[in-house]
Amino acid sequence: MGKIKIGIVGYGNLGRGVEYAIRQNPDMELVAVFTRRQPGDISLKTSGVAVCHYDEMKQYVGKIDVMVLCGGSATDLIVQAPDVAKMFNTVDSFDTHARIPEFYSLVDAAAKPTKHVSIISVGWDPGMFSITRLYNNCILPDAKDYTFWGKGVSQGHSDAIRRVEGVKNGKQYTVPVESAVEQVRTGSNPELTTRQKHTRVCYVVAQPGAELARIESEIKNMPNYFADYDTFVNFISDEEFEKNHNTMPHGGFVIRSGFTGENRENKQLIEYSLKLDSNPEFTSSVLVAYARAAYKLANEASYGAKTVFDIAPALLSPMSNEALREQFL
Amino acid sequence: MGKIKIGIVGYGNLGRGVEYAIRQNPDMELVAVFTRRQPGDISLKTSGVAVCHYDEMKQYVGKIDVMVLCGGSATDLIVQAPDVAKMFNTVDSFDTHARIPEFYSLVDAAAKPTKHVSIISVGWDPGMFSITRLYNNCILPDAKDYTFWGKGVSQGHSDAIRRVEGVKNGKQYTVPVESAVEQVRTGSNPELTTRQKHTRVCYVVAQPGAELARIESEIKNMPNYFADYDTFVNFISDEEFEKNHNTMPHGGFVIRSGFTGENRENKQLIEYSLKLDSNPEFTSSVLVAYARAAYKLANEASYGAKTVFDIAPALLSPMSNEALREQFL
Repeated sequence: MGKIKIGIVGYGNLGRGVEYAIRQNPDMELVAVFTRRQPGDISLKTSGVAVCHYDEMKQYVGKIDVMVLCGGSATDLIVQAPDVAKMFNTVDSFDTHARIPEFYSLVDAAAKPTKHVSIISVGWDPGMFSITRLYNNCILPDAKDYTFWGKGVSQGHSDAIRRVEGVKNGKQYTVPVESAVEQVRTGSNPELTTRQKHTRVCYVVAQPGAELARIESEIKNMPNYFADYDTFVNFISDEEFEKNHNTMPHGGFVIRSGFTGENRENKQLIEYSLKLDSNPEFTSSVLVAYARAAYKLANEASYGAKTVFDIAPALLSPMSNEALREQFL
Repeated sequence: MGKIKIGIVGYGNLGRGVEYAIRQNPDMELVAVFTRRQPGDISLKTSGVAVCHYDEMKQYVGKIDVMVLCGGSATDLIVQAPDVAKMFNTVDSFDTHARIPEFYSLVDAAAKPTKHVSIISVGWDPGMFSITRLYNNCILPDAKDYTFWGKGVSQGHSDAIRRVEGVKNGKQYTVPVESAVEQVRTGSNPELTTRQKHTRVCYVVAQPGAELARIESEIKNMPNYFADYDTFVNFISDEEFEKNHNTMPHGGFVIRSGFTGENRENKQLIEYSLKLDSNPEFTSSVLVAYARAAYKLANEASYGAKTVFDIAPALLSPMSNEALREQFL
C-alpha cells in the first residue's frame, strides 16, 4: 500500500502546521509545497520535498492525491479552492461563515465535473465545533446552545488594534467570562449578552510619544470589535511583546444544555472544549485527518464539495472499520 | 412528507425514554410498542399507540420504518437484534464492548440479505464517547486518551452490592477523582492507576440485624468490582434511599491530550463531557437521532449493520444539507 501523497498550497503558519502534522501520520507523505512567492525564498522543515510556484501545480496531476489549501479565506481560498479543485482533491479551512454556501457552490461546480473531492471549511470553528453543535442539536432538540471562545488570540481584533494611529504592535485575547461558563454548566440556561460572555484583553506597543489615553479610548470604543465588550488595554514594551505574546493559543467551549423526560424534569448537558497552545497547528491537524477522508472518498468515486457534516467519522482514520469496531467502540 | 414511523421493542427505562424523545422530534411518530410481557399490563404515556406482544411484530412490516431496540445487552439484544433486523431497520444500544465484533456480524448477516439497516451500539458509551475518541485520535495522533465516568450510578456495581448477604437495597455511584481530572486537564499526561481515577461510593440499606461491618468489608474487598478502588460504604434507611437515590444520573469525561509542532512544543487538549440527570433518557435521545439516520440510509439502499463510526453527522438531522451548511457550519 502506497502512502497518501499530500501537497500543501500556501506556506504560512497553517502550511507549516500541515507539514508537521503529516510527520505524525505514517500513512501520508508530503510531496510538494506550492507558493505564490518565489519558491527559492522558502525553506521547508522537511528535506527532499519540492517547493514549486503555484503556477506549476498542473505538472503534479497524478503525483499528488490531496492538496491541503492553507491560504486565508478572505482573498486566497475563494479563488484558489475552485481553481485547484479542477485538478486535485482538496481540503481547506474556509472560515467566513456567511459566505460558506456561496463557497460550497463554487467549489462543487469545479470538483464534481472533474471528478474530485473537496472538503471545505475544515478546522475547529468551522469544523469540530460545528460537528459538535450538529450532534448536540440532533440528540437534544429541547435545549440551548452556548459557544465561548478563548482564551485565545483573535487575528481580526489584533489587526484592528494595529490600525489605530500611534500603535506599533498589538495583540488581542478573547477571554470567556468564567462565571458565565460556570452558570451555563449548572444547566440554568441563562440569557447572556455579548458583554457577559467574553472580555477582550489587548496588549499594545505604542509608538514613542503617542497619546496612550486616546489609543485606549479609540480601541475601547471601536464599533463591532470592542464597543460591546468589557475591553482591557495594557501598554507594554517591544521586549515584553516579543517575550510573552509571540504564540497563538486559542480554544473554547461548545455547550448544549437541555431537557428530557415526560415533563422536562431531567437536565442533560453536553460540553466540548479545546485548549490549544497553537491554533494554526490544531487546524492543520484537523485538515490532515480530513485529507485522508478526501482520499478515501475519491477512491469511492464520491465526488464534489463536502463539508465535515457529510463525512462519517471512520473516514478520518487510517484503521480498518473492523479494527475501529474492536478498539474504539 | 410523512413522518418517520418508529416502533419500540422493550418498554423499560430505555423504551420509555424513547417514547419521550420521539415527542421532541416532530418528524417522527411512535406507532407501536412491543413487549415480551402481557401487553395489557403496560400503559404507555402516549395515547393512541398500540402495545403488542413481541410475537406480533411481523404484522407491522411495512407500517414501521425503524424499530428501536430497548432490551438489555446481556440476554435480550444478542437474540432480538438479529431477529428483528430480518424484518425491520433497527437501532440498538448493545454495550458489551468485548462482544461488539460478534454482535456486528450476527446483525449484519440478518440485515443485509433482507435489505435492512441496523445501527448497533448507539448511546453514549459506546456511542458519543466512542465517536469523540475516534475523532480525537485521528486529529491528534501523538497524544494520550483519558476516560472518566461519573458521577453516576453503575447498574452492574449496584447489582453486585445487592447480592451481598444482609443487603436489602443498594446503589453504587462511580465518582471521578477531581484532582486526577484536573491533572489531566493541565496536559501533563500523567500515568493514573485505576484507584487514582475513580472512587466508588455505595449507599446500602441493610436487613434488620445484619452485621454492618461484615457487609462493608465484603463490598470493599469484592474482586473486579471494588477491591481495586477506594470504596466508601454508607448505610442508610429505606426512607433515605427512596428519597435521595431513586434517580439515574451519570456522565463522564473523554479527554485527549497531546502534542503538535516541530518538536512537540505545543500542547493540545480536547475534552468532551456529559452531565446527565437521566442516563437512560440520554441514551434514548441518541437512539432516536440514529433512528433517523437508519431511515435515511434505508432510503439510500445502504443496507447492513453499521456503527456510529459509519454515520455522517448530517444523517442524524431532520434538516437539509443546505440548511445545515447555512446554519450550523
